[in-house]
Amino acid sequence: MSLHPSRLRRFFPILQWGQSYGRTEATSDLLAAAIVTIMLIPQSLAYALLAGLPAEMGLYASILPLVAYAVFGTSRTLAVGPVAVVSLMTAAAIGELGLTNPVDVALAAGTLAFMSGAFLLLMGALRLGFIANFLSHPVIAGFITASGLLIATSQLKHILGVDAGGHTLIETVADLVTHLDNTNAVTLAIGASVTGFLFWVRRGMKPLLVANGTPPQLADILTKAGPVFAVGVTIAATWAFDLHSYGVKIVGEVPTGLPPLTLPVLDGALWQQLALPAVLISVIGFVESVSVAQTLAAKRRQRIVPDQELIGLGASNIGAALTGGYPVTGGFARSVVNFDAGAETPAAGAYTAVGILLAALFLTPVLYFLPIATLAATIIVAVLSLVDLSILKRAWGYSAVDFAAVAATILLTLTLGVEVGVSAGVLISIGLHLYKTSRPHVAEIGLVPGTQHFRNILRHEVETQPHLITLRVDESLYFANARFLEDYVLTRVTCDQPIRHVVLNCPAVNDIDMSALETLEELNRRLADMGITLHLSQIKGPVMDKLRRAHLLEDLSGQVFLSQFQAWQALATPAPSGQRTAS
Amino acid sequence: MSLHPSRLRRFFPILQWGQSYGRTEATSDLLAAAIVTIMLIPQSLAYALLAGLPAEMGLYASILPLVAYAVFGTSRTLAVGPVAVVSLMTAAAIGELGLTNPVDVALAAGTLAFMSGAFLLLMGALRLGFIANFLSHPVIAGFITASGLLIATSQLKHILGVDAGGHTLIETVADLVTHLDNTNAVTLAIGASVTGFLFWVRRGMKPLLVANGTPPQLADILTKAGPVFAVGVTIAATWAFDLHSYGVKIVGEVPTGLPPLTLPVLDGALWQQLALPAVLISVIGFVESVSVAQTLAAKRRQRIVPDQELIGLGASNIGAALTGGYPVTGGFARSVVNFDAGAETPAAGAYTAVGILLAALFLTPVLYFLPIATLAATIIVAVLSLVDLSILKRAWGYSAVDFAAVAATILLTLTLGVEVGVSAGVLISIGLHLYKTSRPHVAEIGLVPGTQHFRNILRHEVETQPHLITLRVDESLYFANARFLEDYVLTRVTCDQPIRHVVLNCPAVNDIDMSALETLEELNRRLADMGITLHLSQIKGPVMDKLRRAHLLEDLSGQVFLSQFQAWQALATPAPSGQRTAS
Repeated sequence: MSLHPSRLRRFFPILQWGQSYGRTEATSDLLAAAIVTIMLIPQSLAYALLAGLPAEMGLYASILPLVAYAVFGTSRTLAVGPVAVVSLMTAAAIGELGLTNPVDVALAAGTLAFMSGAFLLLMGALRLGFIANFLSHPVIAGFITASGLLIATSQLKHILGVDAGGHTLIETVADLVTHLDNTNAVTLAIGASVTGFLFWVRRGMKPLLVANGTPPQLADILTKAGPVFAVGVTIAATWAFDLHSYGVKIVGEVPTGLPPLTLPVLDGALWQQLALPAVLISVIGFVESVSVAQTLAAKRRQRIVPDQELIGLGASNIGAALTGGYPVTGGFARSVVNFDAGAETPAAGAYTAVGILLAALFLTPVLYFLPIATLAATIIVAVLSLVDLSILKRAWGYSAVDFAAVAATILLTLTLGVEVGVSAGVLISIGLHLYKTSRPHVAEIGLVPGTQHFRNILRHEVETQPHLITLRVDESLYFANARFLEDYVLTRVTCDQPIRHVVLNCPAVNDIDMSALETLEELNRRLADMGITLHLSQIKGPVMDKLRRAHLLEDLSGQVFLSQFQAWQALATPAPSGQRTAS
Repeated sequence: MSLHPSRLRRFFPILQWGQSYGRTEATSDLLAAAIVTIMLIPQSLAYALLAGLPAEMGLYASILPLVAYAVFGTSRTLAVGPVAVVSLMTAAAIGELGLTNPVDVALAAGTLAFMSGAFLLLMGALRLGFIANFLSHPVIAGFITASGLLIATSQLKHILGVDAGGHTLIETVADLVTHLDNTNAVTLAIGASVTGFLFWVRRGMKPLLVANGTPPQLADILTKAGPVFAVGVTIAATWAFDLHSYGVKIVGEVPTGLPPLTLPVLDGALWQQLALPAVLISVIGFVESVSVAQTLAAKRRQRIVPDQELIGLGASNIGAALTGGYPVTGGFARSVVNFDAGAETPAAGAYTAVGILLAALFLTPVLYFLPIATLAATIIVAVLSLVDLSILKRAWGYSAVDFAAVAATILLTLTLGVEVGVSAGVLISIGLHLYKTSRPHVAEIGLVPGTQHFRNILRHEVETQPHLITLRVDESLYFANARFLEDYVLTRVTCDQPIRHVVLNCPAVNDIDMSALETLEELNRRLADMGITLHLSQIKGPVMDKLRRAHLLEDLSGQVFLSQFQAWQALATPAPSGQRTAS
């Protein structure tokens, strides 16, 4: 198979936008990249910490992955790199391995990125992007909120300066409480003041700057630089006052230089243990990334291609695995910043990668005195914006089924961890959906006098006939509701003796699967045994095409009517006085 | 909570039919019971053999369970007891435990019956009968066919008189082939001739008898008695010619007397191993039983209550567990015989139990010389009637999705065993259903000139307008297809620039869940960003009720139209020449 240019361009979106890349685009992209780099330096260090990895792995995960996405990704403005939720999931996955040697931990994280990348590439090659759709919004919202809470509590130990652990909310809080006595006052002072400062930067500083005459765009950039400022000040303070000797934990030695070349560990047992986490990280990362990318693309009337996004994110994660990084995806906050800062093409991501590369080459000695508490504060402030418990209220107001899904996901994520939480959420969503469609709404309908319209006899004043009932089924007929319908019809006719005709009105039946087909055949036979004829009306074109390939239409004791009114005209005459067969 | 009489009658259906029980019913029931007893004696022994259990457990499973069902069941004609598929599943479940002591095997089988009974009672108490609906017809048909093939091949070793094993078709056949040299000629002669005889009884004897002037009903009874005749003749032959000394395996000593009182083993590890098999046996048994019961009930315009059937079958299995039996359910063949023989009430089942009790008390010494090959022949002839490979052809002709489900179920059951087969079948059915509904049929519709009707622009000559597109979505909107719709609409509008209005025509949308709601809100925002208004038309009552509880209707850039024609009238004027907002 030779590679046709249009095919090449589909696999390498860079060939599309690269052709018309000029000075204007370059200027916009460089400016956006500078702002994102400033934001990404502390974030990448902090998220590596959250993932339980050395700080430099955050930087490494922010270089080659960004370049890979720039080549293969279809979003013009998505900012790829370490993100909070995927970092938490990485921590959970690696934590379960029970590794103690930091080298093994780093290797496992790289292997996880490799597996996640390979899985994303596979999904992309098979065009399976739709699988992400099975994560319903309530499940995602519940999962993100619960993850935010888990992440924030997991960082409290760094703010307090104590050694504590735990994978679930209860464990973490319980362990924190038992260690409360050991709180390090200096660490707490740093942690609390940075947290307070960052919250103020988010909420209070920008309006203040604007009120004082700063141009809004500059105020915006200054706001984004808040974490960098906090990092700078706390490094300086720690160095100047030798706070490390008061027990303040610091980042310490961060290797200087290019990212190392790393290879995934080829260990069957390890791969087996990491398989499920890799799948979950891939799917969750993909969903988060695609949601952001679609939102931003729509604002500029651009399109992203979800299946190619799988390739882009897959390449990013393979890139992370090969250069000392850990699982990455498109992040919400940084992508919005990138977009707002005017990024025009994915080249902005590549420029950001250069910025982080420079940081890895020259900035790491400065990070030696960076307090861990500062990074923890950065994380807490970032993730608390993800926590949105109002979803519970909105879901409750909208439907009990959606509420059940979101509540279960939050509860299970908090109590049993991220992997159980999100898996259970998906299963619960699917289960509740199937349950709902397994008991469809069935309306008995009658003729609105003087019209050709039919309406629910319970809601409207309509004409009916004692020997004829018409049931409108508001659902596709498939295995999960076939028996319900049969039961419903048979119960209805056995309790009302004069019935001679049953019409199933099918305008809302979008499909009839083989189970439902056989059930209809059975229903037809059983009704015939009772001397009742079964008719169908208003069958849709595609459904009729399918039914023509089966026996039902030939065996049907009654007729198929194009419209319900035709059925009424044909059947709604007084019943002949002939004997009923009661068999 | 005091037990109201009507409540009592719901839990004890015997109180309903028992009130009017008289001499007529008793006569009919006794006759039917006599015929079923004749059929059940060899069957119960054979199925116990199939389950890998001592022959008497088949008899024990045909006494108290039948009485329990007579008290709690709602079907008037269902014949409960050991059946082929459940016996095979029992063999698979017990086989996996790796037990060697026959006493342990019997205890495990009783425990399995107890767990299965408890699970059925629990499902009944929670009114979860609908769960059985998730077994689609193609999955059940595929599973039963594959089970029939597995059972028939598993019995070939008894026909050949060799020791062989294996849980899957390939294992069984391979093991048979390696043992072919050890075939016992006398056993083979018995096995083959009984098999041939029973096939002839089924196919050739009845027409012959009728042709010779035997009344059809008597011919029918004689046909049912075929296996008993074969049992009698081969017992006599084995005794008379001392065939046992030629290597013909016989049933041997069967304890005489009342069924023993047995209790389930209370062993956590055992319960854990048996949990999944118990659930599968319960659900499969319930589905098989309810299908038969419903078919027979409908023929007499009676109704069964599926949730009460769970109670009835649960009580039967508890009964089996307490009296030395193993899992039971309502069987197809015997129920039909019971019905045809004129059984009027569940009392027929209780009379059958008395018949089997008499057999256990007085007939067991006679069974000593019964060749195992005779029982194997009985099983083979019975189960081959379950094998129906034409389901593959019918499914193929009807729909690819149903074909995939049935083919996968057959293949996986044959190659990986009954438990994997049926579980995978359920998951595949659900997965394919979700996949199908995740890419719904969306039709772009236009006005049929001179009417108020709208049709697919690809199938009909219709009027359209360049600035207005109307999309009819033929599926409920829920999480699995929400993103698809958004994608579809956005792709459609980005490739066609003059569009100013998008109308979603929703007569087939039976539900909008929260994911779809949020997607519509998002779509509304994104279209607004492009200067396009979003409208909805023909929303159903219950869906509208739900939408009123959310924000969408307030935020909608366009309007909600009661009918599609109203939407057309309002929007199908030439577009105003105003500037499009492109950002």
